[in-house]
Amino acid sequence: MRRSIKSDISSGPTNFRAPLRGIKLAGEFDLIAQCFAPLAGPEGLGLKDDAALFHPNPGTELVYTVDAVAAGVHFLPEEAPELIAKRLVRVNISDLAAKGAKPRGYLLTIALPHDLDIAWVQAFAKGLGEDQEAYGFQLFGGDTISTPGPLFMSLTAIGEVGQARMIRRTGARAGDDLYVTGTIGDATFGLEVAKGAHEAASEEDRTYLESRFRLPTPRIEFGQILAMEALATAAADVSDGLLADAGHIGIASGFDIEVIADAVPLSAPARRVVRDGNRLADAITGGDDYEIVFTARPNSWQMIKAASVKQGLQVTRIGRVVETLRDKSSVRLMGKCGDVIELEHLGYRHR
Amino acid sequence: MRRSIKSDISSGPTNFRAPLRGIKLAGEFDLIAQCFAPLAGPEGLGLKDDAALFHPNPGTELVYTVDAVAAGVHFLPEEAPELIAKRLVRVNISDLAAKGAKPRGYLLTIALPHDLDIAWVQAFAKGLGEDQEAYGFQLFGGDTISTPGPLFMSLTAIGEVGQARMIRRTGARAGDDLYVTGTIGDATFGLEVAKGAHEAASEEDRTYLESRFRLPTPRIEFGQILAMEALATAAADVSDGLLADAGHIGIASGFDIEVIADAVPLSAPARRVVRDGNRLADAITGGDDYEIVFTARPNSWQMIKAASVKQGLQVTRIGRVVETLRDKSSVRLMGKCGDVIELEHLGYRHR
Repeated sequence: MRRSIKSDISSGPTNFRAPLRGIKLAGEFDLIAQCFAPLAGPEGLGLKDDAALFHPNPGTELVYTVDAVAAGVHFLPEEAPELIAKRLVRVNISDLAAKGAKPRGYLLTIALPHDLDIAWVQAFAKGLGEDQEAYGFQLFGGDTISTPGPLFMSLTAIGEVGQARMIRRTGARAGDDLYVTGTIGDATFGLEVAKGAHEAASEEDRTYLESRFRLPTPRIEFGQILAMEALATAAADVSDGLLADAGHIGIASGFDIEVIADAVPLSAPARRVVRDGNRLADAITGGDDYEIVFTARPNSWQMIKAASVKQGLQVTRIGRVVETLRDKSSVRLMGKCGDVIELEHLGYRHR
Repeated sequence: MRRSIKSDISSGPTNFRAPLRGIKLAGEFDLIAQCFAPLAGPEGLGLKDDAALFHPNPGTELVYTVDAVAAGVHFLPEEAPELIAKRLVRVNISDLAAKGAKPRGYLLTIALPHDLDIAWVQAFAKGLGEDQEAYGFQLFGGDTISTPGPLFMSLTAIGEVGQARMIRRTGARAGDDLYVTGTIGDATFGLEVAKGAHEAASEEDRTYLESRFRLPTPRIEFGQILAMEALATAAADVSDGLLADAGHIGIASGFDIEVIADAVPLSAPARRVVRDGNRLADAITGGDDYEIVFTARPNSWQMIKAASVKQGLQVTRIGRVVETLRDKSSVRLMGKCGDVIELEHLGYRHR
C-alpha cells in the first residue's frame, strides 16, 4: 500500500519496503540495502522484486506462524535490539519446532518510531542475521513503515515438514505418555531476576535463569525427529506454561492430561528457587519455556530415549493421557500417590 | 511471544492469538472465535493449533508478500473498517497478481488500541470475509496484540504459481513491448476527490474516481494468464506510479523503458480531469493504480489481445524496451514524434 491518505509515508516498490519520508532513519541511509538485503536468501530475490519466490521441496508441506511484539508491551524499549530480534525469531520458530517443521524463511514487518536511531536497526538486523545462521533460514521479504506509536514488529515464519508429518495438537489418545523437553520454570524465574528479584541467589544461578528468559532455545532439531520418525502423537510448544499447554493438547484431542508434579524437570538453579520459596506451582504454570510438550505411544519410549541421547537434549516423561473424567477435557497436576494437587490457577489460559 | 516483560498482555496459545488483558475488546467477547475463526480455511486448522499447515499443489512454487498499514498514516482512523480490510487485502494480492500467482492464504497481525470498539473488528473481519470469497483464498493464522499506539495491521499473503512461471522484474529485453492493464491515474485523482477536490466534476465522475482509489481491483486472473501462457517477460504492479514502476522493470532488467505519453490509457472521468487541468503528468506519475505493467515479446501481441478480450480487461501497449542510452537504465516519457518529454519528477521513486 504505497500511497497514504496523508501522503506522508510510502512503502516503496520491492518485497522489502522502506519508509521514505517523515522518518529520520531514511535520510541518506538505505535501510533496506544496508541492513536487510544481506539477510535475504535466494528466495528473497535480493529484496528487489515485488514478492519472494519459494520452491518447496517435493513431498513437503508448509507450516506458517506469525507473532507480533511491541515496545513497552512485550519488551522494554531499552532492551538490546539484538536480543529483541533473536527472541522474536525464536518464539516464532518454537511454534514450528513443536509441529516438527524445519524453518525455511520469514517475512518481517517493522513499524519504526520517528526518533529511532539507525544504529538500533543495524543492531536488530545483526541479531536476525546471527539467528538465521544458527537456525539455517533466510529473510524472504518485509515492510517497514513509520509510526507515531511504539516500535512494533511482526514476523511470519515459514517452515517445511514431510508430507502428513506435521504434529498436530489433536492426536493424543488415552494411554499415551506425556513428555517435555529441557527444563521447566527457568524463564519464569528468569523474568523475576530481570525485574530485580532473587537477590539471594548466586550470580551464576541468576545469570542462567535470566538468559533462559531472554534467549529461549527452540527445540528445532528434536521437533523434526519427532515428526520424521512419527514418535509424537500430539505436540505444542510451552509458551503459556507447561500445564496450560499440556491442557491445550488434551482439549484438542478430547482427553484428560495428568501431569506428575514431581516428574517435571527443573534445572539446578530453578530447583533451588523452588526449594527456597515453595515455588513448584509457579514453575509448572509459568510460561515462556519454549520447550516441546508432547504425547507418544508407550512403545515409542526407546526411540524417544535414543533421540534424546543423540541430541544431547533432556527429555522427560512427566505424565499421561487418560479418558476424560467429566464431559470436558481437563488437565490435572498429580501428587506422588495418585492424588490430585489443587492449584489456585493452572497458569495462563486462552480464555 | 506469550509473556511480556510488563506481563500485561499475552498473545495466547494458537495460530491466531488474542490480546487477553488490558484491552476493552477482550472482556467476555471471544475475538478470535467470533470474528476470525469463520475466515479460516482448512489450512488454518480452525485457528486452534500452533501453526497453519499448507499443502502446495504439485509442480507449484510459492510467492510471498507482506504489507503493513497504520491509522493516520495509510488510512484515516474514521475510514470504514470494511474498506480498510479490503484495501489491505487487495494491495497485497496485487503484488501476487503481477507475479502471476494465485492467492491461497494469508496471515494477519493486528495491533489494537485500547479504546477500539468490538464493532470495528467485526466490520473489519466482514470486509476480509467478502474479499476472501471474491478472490478465493483463506485466513491461515494471525496475532492480535494490544497497543498504546495507533491501530496497525500487517498482512502476509501467500500465492501459488506454476513451477518456473513466476514473472520477475528482470526478464525484459530490448525490442519487447510495454503494456499496462486497465486505466491509469484514476486513483491519483480519486485521492484528490476524497480530500475534497474536483468539486466542478460531475457526481458520477467523482464517485468513479474515488472508488478506484478506495477499492482497487487487483488483476489476479489476468496475471495468472500472463504467467501460465508465458506471455510476459517481466512485470510489476503499478503502485508507485506507472513511470516509476515501468522504470523498476527497466532497472532490474538492465534496459531503458520508453513510455508513449499519448498511449497511456485513461478512463473517461480521468481524461476529463487531465483535459481540464493539464494533468497528464500527474496521472502517469501518480500511484495506487494496482494495474499490471508488463513487457512482452512483439510476437505475443495476438495472445495478449485474446486474453484481454476473454477477460474483458483493457490491455494497452504503451511503449517499448530499448538498449540503455547511458551507463544506467532509465525510463523516458515520449511524445508523438519520438521526442522525450521532460517531467519535473517521474513519480515517486524508491530513493
